[in-house]
Amino acid sequence: MEDSRTIETATMKMIEKAKKDNVETAWDRAEKMKPQCGFGETGVCCRICTMGPCRIDLVGDGPKRGVCGADADTIVARNLIRMIAGGAAAHSDHGRDISHTLLMAAEGSDYEVKEPEKLIAVAKVFGVETEGKDIKEIAKETAIKALEDFGRYEGLTLYPYTANEKRKKIWEKNDVWPRSIDREIVQIMHQTHMGVDADYVNLIQQGVRASIGDGWGGSMIATELSDVLFGLPKPIETEANLGVLEKNMVNIVAHGHEPTLSDMIVQASQDNELLERAKAVGAEGINVVGMCCTGNEIVMRHGTRMAGNFLQQEAAIVTGAVDAMIVDVQCIMPSVTQVASCYHTKVISTSPKAKIPGAIHIQFDEKHAYEIAKKIILEGVENFKNRIPEKVHIPEEKSQAIVGFSVESIIKGLDKVVIASAQPTGTVKPLVDCIVSGVLRGAAGVVGCNNHKVQHNYGHVELIKDLIKHDVIVVVTGCTAYACAEAGLMKPEAKELCGPGLKTVCELVGIPPVLHMGSCVDCSRILILLNEVAKYLNLDISDLPAAGAAPEWMSEKAVSIGTYFVTSGVYTVLGVCPPVLGSKNVTKLLTEDVEGIYGGKFAVEPDPHKAAQLMIDHIEAKRKALGI
Amino acid sequence: MEDSRTIETATMKMIEKAKKDNVETAWDRAEKMKPQCGFGETGVCCRICTMGPCRIDLVGDGPKRGVCGADADTIVARNLIRMIAGGAAAHSDHGRDISHTLLMAAEGSDYEVKEPEKLIAVAKVFGVETEGKDIKEIAKETAIKALEDFGRYEGLTLYPYTANEKRKKIWEKNDVWPRSIDREIVQIMHQTHMGVDADYVNLIQQGVRASIGDGWGGSMIATELSDVLFGLPKPIETEANLGVLEKNMVNIVAHGHEPTLSDMIVQASQDNELLERAKAVGAEGINVVGMCCTGNEIVMRHGTRMAGNFLQQEAAIVTGAVDAMIVDVQCIMPSVTQVASCYHTKVISTSPKAKIPGAIHIQFDEKHAYEIAKKIILEGVENFKNRIPEKVHIPEEKSQAIVGFSVESIIKGLDKVVIASAQPTGTVKPLVDCIVSGVLRGAAGVVGCNNHKVQHNYGHVELIKDLIKHDVIVVVTGCTAYACAEAGLMKPEAKELCGPGLKTVCELVGIPPVLHMGSCVDCSRILILLNEVAKYLNLDISDLPAAGAAPEWMSEKAVSIGTYFVTSGVYTVLGVCPPVLGSKNVTKLLTEDVEGIYGGKFAVEPDPHKAAQLMIDHIEAKRKALGI
Repeated sequence: MEDSRTIETATMKMIEKAKKDNVETAWDRAEKMKPQCGFGETGVCCRICTMGPCRIDLVGDGPKRGVCGADADTIVARNLIRMIAGGAAAHSDHGRDISHTLLMAAEGSDYEVKEPEKLIAVAKVFGVETEGKDIKEIAKETAIKALEDFGRYEGLTLYPYTANEKRKKIWEKNDVWPRSIDREIVQIMHQTHMGVDADYVNLIQQGVRASIGDGWGGSMIATELSDVLFGLPKPIETEANLGVLEKNMVNIVAHGHEPTLSDMIVQASQDNELLERAKAVGAEGINVVGMCCTGNEIVMRHGTRMAGNFLQQEAAIVTGAVDAMIVDVQCIMPSVTQVASCYHTKVISTSPKAKIPGAIHIQFDEKHAYEIAKKIILEGVENFKNRIPEKVHIPEEKSQAIVGFSVESIIKGLDKVVIASAQPTGTVKPLVDCIVSGVLRGAAGVVGCNNHKVQHNYGHVELIKDLIKHDVIVVVTGCTAYACAEAGLMKPEAKELCGPGLKTVCELVGIPPVLHMGSCVDCSRILILLNEVAKYLNLDISDLPAAGAAPEWMSEKAVSIGTYFVTSGVYTVLGVCPPVLGSKNVTKLLTEDVEGIYGGKFAVEPDPHKAAQLMIDHIEAKRKALGI
Repeated sequence: MEDSRTIETATMKMIEKAKKDNVETAWDRAEKMKPQCGFGETGVCCRICTMGPCRIDLVGDGPKRGVCGADADTIVARNLIRMIAGGAAAHSDHGRDISHTLLMAAEGSDYEVKEPEKLIAVAKVFGVETEGKDIKEIAKETAIKALEDFGRYEGLTLYPYTANEKRKKIWEKNDVWPRSIDREIVQIMHQTHMGVDADYVNLIQQGVRASIGDGWGGSMIATELSDVLFGLPKPIETEANLGVLEKNMVNIVAHGHEPTLSDMIVQASQDNELLERAKAVGAEGINVVGMCCTGNEIVMRHGTRMAGNFLQQEAAIVTGAVDAMIVDVQCIMPSVTQVASCYHTKVISTSPKAKIPGAIHIQFDEKHAYEIAKKIILEGVENFKNRIPEKVHIPEEKSQAIVGFSVESIIKGLDKVVIASAQPTGTVKPLVDCIVSGVLRGAAGVVGCNNHKVQHNYGHVELIKDLIKHDVIVVVTGCTAYACAEAGLMKPEAKELCGPGLKTVCELVGIPPVLHMGSCVDCSRILILLNEVAKYLNLDISDLPAAGAAPEWMSEKAVSIGTYFVTSGVYTVLGVCPPVLGSKNVTKLLTEDVEGIYGGKFAVEPDPHKAAQLMIDHIEAKRKALGI
């Protein structure tokens, strides 16, 4: 049975160890949960008012309408866009927090502007005059303009103006340009309130508007300003998998999503005072490793090694070698404290938005960032001596990986193949040339989470292997990035798994065939890259031989991400079916009709090989349409 | 069976007619829905990510945790505060729309400032300098300041500063002062996202913060600015119940929540052009009547008659005499178009946020308000001739009522009993004197919806009869107001149902014992009244002999309203249990512990007589504590 849980041997070993240690994991709980509720799975359960719960009977002669008269179309659409609201809200808060950190950097704090050039570029998007101003002044004005986009009461959000002309016209025509990032989320909650919108098309339209406010708003602001504050990712070598935990070092797992704290944790882990204390307790040093998207944030900028993705968070603790797991927000299983209670691990929560019974709460505060980071690490250091030797087992698995592919570093990397005398540098031209010539057939973004409904990492790895074999270059974020790193798809040798064209590009440019673009908010980097290519070709994103996939998604953020990709023109294949099958109309809208409006659409295909084929077919069709 | 559905004979007749006409009503659908899902009813169903749906088995040996490890406490708290998000969002949009209408009035539109004095009072709350400025300038600056409170990126929302000092300290101490109205709603959606907050206390705290942003933010702004734009409600006579529909007139039912359109509909219904057209089609005139809170908005200011509350919306159409039902947002059953399809009624949707399959959509736009209102009414006029005579049956029931009790008009009314020479006028002193002396034992706010789980209007009417018998003066909003008007509790003769003290007050002041304070956003009027009394006595709201109830609530708005009442210090009794019983901890927090923090708490009591007794006991205990 365990074999069906993951393709990844280190995790498999920890699942077995957990069983022996009498520790429950997500897979065990999923087993117990079966059968899962079919009404919920198909989206036809409504708990929006207390006249309910209502549920639509799709097959029998039971109710076809809720007490208020809402039918399956209305119920499914309302539930779906509330998922978008949840996802977009997570990214909105993330972007807002980063903007606030920039403001504090400008006003004086432990943070500073690491990329003045990028700050100036972002300032221009927000219409901030930069000429003759010092960097702190620009930072302050830009931060305020960014913060305003979350709650502006007039006009429209500003970042979507960076999209290509054709795309902007589509958004304008369909009235989905977000007014403010927060307002569209709030409007979803209103529009789905009892007795407001009953029209599934209108409901989905509002979901689209909020999702664009995520992809081209909250998330994009988060990414851009994180680069400004923490540095532009550049290719860097690292290692990935549970084997990055060290037997003789203090192991600190930084888990969650935001870079604000974790970047400081990485810095503070080299603090002499702490290193000395670590030695005093018998450790050889302090080993900070990343988990989930916080891990992606720090590996991209510091090479901090990657311990594992969403379904590995419990496994990491099961090694018995994690002295502290530091968490901020999102995708932190409440079970971590339960698992930790079977070992010596301290779980330390840090965000006022996310507390966990059984965790130590040390609230993070940007004003005293370094000091608090030190205090947090010290908890781990002091806990080193509490390890229970007979319970410690660190699997040896770890893989080499090259990560750190921001759009800027991709363009810079591609310049290597430009004959400097004849061609311009600093553009997407080399990439475009490779695609137009057919050396690369196209590009794919593969993103998203893990989900017990898919064998862990299988969906990501199998899909991507098929794509690269077909000379489709792949960019990844989030949990997908870990899956690829662990499977060796991010090391140069992975070129051997590619078709001849992609293999050549990998060799010439010196890149792996799968490019790690960052955390889940960094899906915005994929939008930016697609948009740059489209602009260069005077086309729209929907014209490009490109496709997206989320083979193992589970979170509401993924629903928002999928929606903004589709409505930015990207064909997107999901490996897990969203709760929409209860409405034929909503299903048809999302998988067929939406293409005529936005140029992208959803498909659902649990088999990663078939999913890859769908994407390849789409890419080839787009090539044909372009005559290339 | 039908007898158990409503206490109200006109509605009962229409339920019987619906059956004969083969028309399905909410009660029929509720019957079909039984048994309703016990997991949903107790709050332990989680559909927040697609690792689920998960459900906690409270009694058997099934799962005690979701796949992620969330337990019943976490799941119940997350679901509950998402309900607050839905409710607060509805009121946020409402307040924002009214603020926007004020801005348009300032910049030139069909709207104007009807209450300059009140505008100046509101301007002061927002820190707008009024000296030497003309009214349009003040309106513009106030509207902008109000709009900013929905999305401010620094500081705190401004309206809560009007609360008494003790209350403000409680909010500060517990860190629940809302930053911006929208942001707190968005943070709920983030905080309840998969893997963020797992601490039910912390989750509920965020729900509280958003609810205060509703009561002392979105709702209060909506109320205050509606008074500015549409006039301060003053006592006015009207009639209530389905009998206000007229056989020989064009019947237009204005249904929904906002006054912006409905106020214009009332004006336009007197337009000569339309009246002539009405005559041309054989009608004696145009009869605009109100339904739900849109009805409350217009009856308070124009005396427009009240056709019915939430569970009467289908019944109104079943009369066969509604030529047009005009809807904006909230509490509009999607079934209205289905019911309408069995008669001649045209349902006209008007908000971009709320479309209904089968309705005619005529989008309202404040810029062309009067013109659009006319166009909408014309639909009804032209439809008059399509009535199906054999299907028309207007029940004769209608009751007299006096409505229009804004805080300002209550104070003015009370001045009647002030001996002008000896006492100040324009204060709550006469009310306070009545309470302190014991002539009135206390005050109660009874609000909320209808819900098929309670016999229609029974909860409202029985509870309130017990209260007034005990000399507790009652203020009402929303669907409760209709129930009282229909039951004759808002006419002067209702004094005969009161105890001797309240009867005397009614006689002296010339008011009914139940005061109609408006729509559901106007629950903010109740806060203002309580706060004025508390300030006058140098006490907090929680010290007053006052209590609240929502005997038949069903909507998410009610969850938000209940929460801001409790956390403003009001003991609040619910007639329908919210979905919290799956967590003993959350239930205890809301019904016990919260009192120690905020001075108010929830109770749940389906029997209205027992509920009234709980409220009376609370009021008497508060009197005792005050030594009065």
